[in-house]
Amino acid sequence: MELSKFELKTVGGVFSSELEEKISSGKVRVGIVGVGYVGQALTASLVESGIRTFGYDLDESKYSRIEHKLFIGSKFIEELETCEVICICVPTPLDENKKPDLRFLQQAAQALSKFHTKNQLIIIESTVAPGTTRNFVLPLLTLHGRRHEEDFFLAFSPERVDPGNAKFHLKNTPKIVGGLGKTAPQLTAAFYSKFVDEVVVTSSPEVAELTKMLENSFRLVNVSFINEMKHYADAAGIDIWEAINAAATKPFGFLPHYPGPGVGGHCIPVDPVYLLEEAASKNIDLPILKSAVLVNDLQPKKIVAAAKGLTNGRSDAKNKKMLLLGIAYKPDTADTRESPALKIMVEAEKEGFEVNYFDPYVPKYNGFTSSILTRELVLEQDVIVIATHHQNIPYELFADVDVPIIDTRNVLRQFKKDKVSFGEERLS
Amino acid sequence: MELSKFELKTVGGVFSSELEEKISSGKVRVGIVGVGYVGQALTASLVESGIRTFGYDLDESKYSRIEHKLFIGSKFIEELETCEVICICVPTPLDENKKPDLRFLQQAAQALSKFHTKNQLIIIESTVAPGTTRNFVLPLLTLHGRRHEEDFFLAFSPERVDPGNAKFHLKNTPKIVGGLGKTAPQLTAAFYSKFVDEVVVTSSPEVAELTKMLENSFRLVNVSFINEMKHYADAAGIDIWEAINAAATKPFGFLPHYPGPGVGGHCIPVDPVYLLEEAASKNIDLPILKSAVLVNDLQPKKIVAAAKGLTNGRSDAKNKKMLLLGIAYKPDTADTRESPALKIMVEAEKEGFEVNYFDPYVPKYNGFTSSILTRELVLEQDVIVIATHHQNIPYELFADVDVPIIDTRNVLRQFKKDKVSFGEERLS
Repeated sequence: MELSKFELKTVGGVFSSELEEKISSGKVRVGIVGVGYVGQALTASLVESGIRTFGYDLDESKYSRIEHKLFIGSKFIEELETCEVICICVPTPLDENKKPDLRFLQQAAQALSKFHTKNQLIIIESTVAPGTTRNFVLPLLTLHGRRHEEDFFLAFSPERVDPGNAKFHLKNTPKIVGGLGKTAPQLTAAFYSKFVDEVVVTSSPEVAELTKMLENSFRLVNVSFINEMKHYADAAGIDIWEAINAAATKPFGFLPHYPGPGVGGHCIPVDPVYLLEEAASKNIDLPILKSAVLVNDLQPKKIVAAAKGLTNGRSDAKNKKMLLLGIAYKPDTADTRESPALKIMVEAEKEGFEVNYFDPYVPKYNGFTSSILTRELVLEQDVIVIATHHQNIPYELFADVDVPIIDTRNVLRQFKKDKVSFGEERLS
Repeated sequence: MELSKFELKTVGGVFSSELEEKISSGKVRVGIVGVGYVGQALTASLVESGIRTFGYDLDESKYSRIEHKLFIGSKFIEELETCEVICICVPTPLDENKKPDLRFLQQAAQALSKFHTKNQLIIIESTVAPGTTRNFVLPLLTLHGRRHEEDFFLAFSPERVDPGNAKFHLKNTPKIVGGLGKTAPQLTAAFYSKFVDEVVVTSSPEVAELTKMLENSFRLVNVSFINEMKHYADAAGIDIWEAINAAATKPFGFLPHYPGPGVGGHCIPVDPVYLLEEAASKNIDLPILKSAVLVNDLQPKKIVAAAKGLTNGRSDAKNKKMLLLGIAYKPDTADTRESPALKIMVEAEKEGFEVNYFDPYVPKYNGFTSSILTRELVLEQDVIVIATHHQNIPYELFADVDVPIIDTRNVLRQFKKDKVSFGEERLS
């Protein structure tokens, strides 16, 4: 008996109304509001399942790359008006003051409020704080007289895809659904079950909203926790990577996380801030999550401080040279959103470093160009920071050079002579 | 290619020296210093494997229960002097000021320093902060002239067993080993591989010490994190249990933890304090771990404050009645060490409650006697707190009574009419 678990209903639906039938038969037109990473992945799944999809984005480059006979892109949201299902995939980032920025979601909802289609299912995939679907989006959608459960149905279903994950993708990652009223969850479940293996329906949008916050906050907390543990381990002269791998042999109750320059991307560093704001509005303090955000925010500064320490006295040059390896936030992707490497770059320049970078996936960034990686380039550096562990970086170039290297991902371990082995001692 | 992982050597050994041969052949006598929970579990595995075992404990009741032809208990540590292998399993608790208390470990090491046996393998199983084996225990063992690697060999191998876990026990949970010098790790690996399926040898005692700290700190951080999330969810009117179960459907990157009155036992609430102390001695701040300890320490207070709120105005009695269900720290065990239920008990009495408890596994505790559980007893309470979810508590007694219940384990969910189901809405 596992008393702490209870049933979540998994469904694929058969329904009665006209919209339900259309959805169930797959003869539905879907409008995607915001064709960024999330919208593109969703579009790909839809057209592959034979569903006609219309994409809207102000940035034409977002949809112009998608070539499929079932897809039409546009920069006019009105083109989506007659779609039976609308998925909102706009970004919900932080503004310059690191506060939740719901502007794109607001604009999308306001535009949809002017539609005239009856029986339209509107699904929010953008990550939002609990209560946003009900208290922020729903009122906007009714601004021009559209009524929930008569003209439209509103649900929330968080995007959950891990870009670059070879094993789990949209289809085989259970889709969480929470809808307002009785019909929206059923319609939404029926919709996703056309192209996702398992749909999990929760009892409210708030539960679904919190589910996503929980998943991403879990990751931020644990990555930041292992980063703070690494600070201790470094000070104590202990190899944290070895301890993590040893701990990972525990067959229950442990999930390994690995140190690095901090979390990046549009989700993990951002979502917890939404949750902290929402909790603060209810006078709830979340000290662990707050500490995790702080630890993460400080990582780039700590790395640059370490780099400064390593370059002290290495040359008389006023501006010491730093080469940054990998500026995407995730290995083997070109995605630089909220990448900690970029924060290292900014911080290092502030501290007087002359920064260059090499990233095989990001040829240009913000006026910089990815360097041509040669042994000469490597040897003329004062310090090298490995920020992102792309597989196609020729790490052997760094294996035996006399340049200080901050290897935040432990990729050079493979070249070390003192690799951990039986009975060997690292501390003496 | 997973660049962030690297090899840990797994061994079962064949060795040359006399001690190695004795260990490998199983013809070894093992002395257990401290026959508490850890020492008892180890003893059971040893004698079942046909290895003669001698147990030492000042508390005769600890070893007098063990009846096996290969086991002899004693309250004189000298009885262990001729054992080839000594396992130290003494408690390493916190003192009254919540500081690490290494007294028992110190006494054990001092006693062993007076032994005259040559070629003795000494293994510490008690959880300690990184560096303790080398910097605290080793000097004590040499107080009377015994020399490491000549007279004795010293290793650290953390106890890792989850009491009551039906699937994983000593034998099938990989055993982490870290030893000083070259011989101790080999001897220790050979020793455990006689009765444990897999032995993982790390490069130093410090790595093994940190491994255990990492595992237990991970658990404290994540349980405290979910408890702080529950405070938010309660304030927002969202069912955290449903969100956790929904999040747990994510097939990667998430490990569910469940709310409760806080962590208990001799490990999870204690070990992180050892690590915080050790890190502070190296001027390293661990803000996330520190927050987790604070959140955990505050749980009993928060629960009693909630109980006060619920009983306000329920009766004119000066002392409101509280019934506490389950006072062991773990379900289906009698283990009350560091149990949060006991802290609730103390706190509730401070706040004027008349506290009684029911625990089928703990008939008596500290002058209290477990109540006889009847419907009458239940009905006369002002508040009931379910602290530990033993399976053999008749929860149906609490299913439909008009007494406020704080169900920290969500066990009464099974009786609720509004169980989560498809399309149902909890918030309106």
